[in-house]
Amino acid sequence: MAKNAFYAQSGGVTAVINASACGVIETARQHPDQIANVYAGRNGIIGALTEDLIDTSKESAANIAALRHTPSGGFGSCRYKLKSLEANKREYERLIEVFKAHDIGYFFYNGGGDSADTCYKVSQLSEKMGYPVQAIHVPKTVDNDLPITDNCPGFGSVAKYIAVSTLEASFDVRSMAKTSTKIFVIEVMGRHAGWIAAAGGLVEDNNIPVLVLFPEVEFNQDKFLAAVKAKVEQHGYCTIVVSEGCHYPDGTFLAEQGTRDAFGHAQLGGAAPVVANMIKEAYGYKFHWAVADYLQRAARHLASNSDVEQAYALGKAAVEKALEGKNAIMPTVVRESSNPYKWSIGEAPLSEVANVEKMMPKDFITEDGYGITDACKEYLYPLIQGENYPPYDDNGMPKYVQLDNVAVEKKCAEFELK
Amino acid sequence: MAKNAFYAQSGGVTAVINASACGVIETARQHPDQIANVYAGRNGIIGALTEDLIDTSKESAANIAALRHTPSGGFGSCRYKLKSLEANKREYERLIEVFKAHDIGYFFYNGGGDSADTCYKVSQLSEKMGYPVQAIHVPKTVDNDLPITDNCPGFGSVAKYIAVSTLEASFDVRSMAKTSTKIFVIEVMGRHAGWIAAAGGLVEDNNIPVLVLFPEVEFNQDKFLAAVKAKVEQHGYCTIVVSEGCHYPDGTFLAEQGTRDAFGHAQLGGAAPVVANMIKEAYGYKFHWAVADYLQRAARHLASNSDVEQAYALGKAAVEKALEGKNAIMPTVVRESSNPYKWSIGEAPLSEVANVEKMMPKDFITEDGYGITDACKEYLYPLIQGENYPPYDDNGMPKYVQLDNVAVEKKCAEFELK
Repeated sequence: MAKNAFYAQSGGVTAVINASACGVIETARQHPDQIANVYAGRNGIIGALTEDLIDTSKESAANIAALRHTPSGGFGSCRYKLKSLEANKREYERLIEVFKAHDIGYFFYNGGGDSADTCYKVSQLSEKMGYPVQAIHVPKTVDNDLPITDNCPGFGSVAKYIAVSTLEASFDVRSMAKTSTKIFVIEVMGRHAGWIAAAGGLVEDNNIPVLVLFPEVEFNQDKFLAAVKAKVEQHGYCTIVVSEGCHYPDGTFLAEQGTRDAFGHAQLGGAAPVVANMIKEAYGYKFHWAVADYLQRAARHLASNSDVEQAYALGKAAVEKALEGKNAIMPTVVRESSNPYKWSIGEAPLSEVANVEKMMPKDFITEDGYGITDACKEYLYPLIQGENYPPYDDNGMPKYVQLDNVAVEKKCAEFELK
Repeated sequence: MAKNAFYAQSGGVTAVINASACGVIETARQHPDQIANVYAGRNGIIGALTEDLIDTSKESAANIAALRHTPSGGFGSCRYKLKSLEANKREYERLIEVFKAHDIGYFFYNGGGDSADTCYKVSQLSEKMGYPVQAIHVPKTVDNDLPITDNCPGFGSVAKYIAVSTLEASFDVRSMAKTSTKIFVIEVMGRHAGWIAAAGGLVEDNNIPVLVLFPEVEFNQDKFLAAVKAKVEQHGYCTIVVSEGCHYPDGTFLAEQGTRDAFGHAQLGGAAPVVANMIKEAYGYKFHWAVADYLQRAARHLASNSDVEQAYALGKAAVEKALEGKNAIMPTVVRESSNPYKWSIGEAPLSEVANVEKMMPKDFITEDGYGITDACKEYLYPLIQGENYPPYDDNGMPKYVQLDNVAVEKKCAEFELK
């Protein structure tokens, strides 16, 4: 007897999380004998808790296919962490109640480390409560910090965006450096791990003088300023890629160095203007700075083909593994070789994924702390290989789909989020 | 007898100024009987003044062709304005001296309003000095503020980048708005004219709640905050596109509202964090902000096809018009129709181009001051139509060319820039 499936997007969205959704839904549709329908959580897990489910069967095949080239979370996502079973028992039990009411036998949760943990707990609790649900985690995070899998969907496209954007802006600065801008600073995401910042370091291979400020390396102002000066004196200009997580030895982020606005309120600036002004103070070099923020993780227009294919494949594998009877696992990307790039799908038990953060290996950062090593480049390049462009309309805008997101009729009592 | 040509890039570079260079050089190469060689100024007009000329004949046809898909200024640009003939006579005369020494009969100057003025003066002075040089201006500016021509190469690609990036980031915010970010602010270039900001307003056609802050409209904080609140209450989130030129009635830019760093120095922030913090203060909405800066004008990876074709065509037309004997003119884009988009090449006398700034028509901005009208959309869409992607290498990086830029032997005395 076919059961329904529940799918939800969790945490910060990416350029390719919808490609995973597409993989889940298209694959489920190929197995109507086992999966009757896929219900999506409106705004992530909150949709399950409040019984706000989206009936994906109301969407045309064309719309579901278009998710593959549409950035962001098509069903809405949320930042809502379910903590321990003890502290949040009421919520875990509510999930099971809703799953039961809607005959849901499969739980596909598309997110990062926190949601892997939630997914694991749902599988544990559902067994205890006598309503077994197969819980499969679909990896997603621009931060690339999930363990076991070689990389995470979402990261490759951010990496490509940052590498290409840093290259283009560096070409710009080089053109202007004789009489104008000599310093370009780009701030990138990654509060704990420098994976995204590392991608900016790839421009070194295009003869760009670049310094990367990683969260993994404690910031030393004097040493950094000396390195900037050396680059400008040798090349006439310098590009700096600064991670939002770059910090002083005492843990203070560069971005929160106590600037105040006209009213005396702490100014939430970025790390980029801080770094740029620091260089200006020291040497007077004219600068420009950019903060890519959401542009980087939403940039489906420049998605990496590797990334899109893996995002889709992992969604597909999640459903296939569920149909094989698997539970409490996460499909992973296994790197077979870097050159030529070959990968396959593996799997990891959620017990080993939950609450483990994968940091950059030490040997990916150069000894001076401002660059990436050949090992890092060998790791990164395959992940940004290939272009996967969205279709555009006649006006010149990308054809991103906006789903109808029709609600499923409610069957349970109201539930209040705390 | 064939003369040589001089070509220089001026002011801020763009994603397509090299496409104009490509049009100039490829067209000149087709007329060796009239144009012996194209010398480019290293770092713009400074290259002519210091007799630092680049011999473009040393570059392969493939490298010159690759300029068409390479952003930035391949020969270097500069910010160096020659003022009036009286104040700068020494420099204008030096230009003629260098042109004479290198048998230069054609002057192609690729820039904005200031360089149109310089170009015009060179043509006047050369006549007076008895060494006639045909001076043709090739329009370029992301600001889109040159008169007579329907639009300026460089603008269409920035407009496409801002429209697409604003759309993508808005999709992201919409996904997160239920529990997290409700406000996204993107800061765009355009100190005097709101053309680039207007492009961000195009996302309204994709159902995005958006407010645009133009430099043409005096900033009214209370009115703006009320508009933000209305959007968030209706849609759950709001996107704000703020021009770097947005200012208060007294002329103070939003970006310079007196923030100080830890040392008491004026903080050179952006307008985006100011707007974001202002909204946070008023309503507590969680925000994200981005400053695109050079990323927007260097984004060759997302160039508008209209823009690339026009940039090339104007470079080509400049040479053809020179060969027809024209002088002191600028080839222009003439819009024949918007739908379907048809354009042709016209020409404008430099006397009418120099020192005239084209502002946004009043009827392009909606009555409330925060949006763009249908007339504006009809103007903008054709300029962002079509995609023109650069080739990528096997690593997933764009194949942008870096020229050899071989110097021409010097023949004149040293010249000191003042």
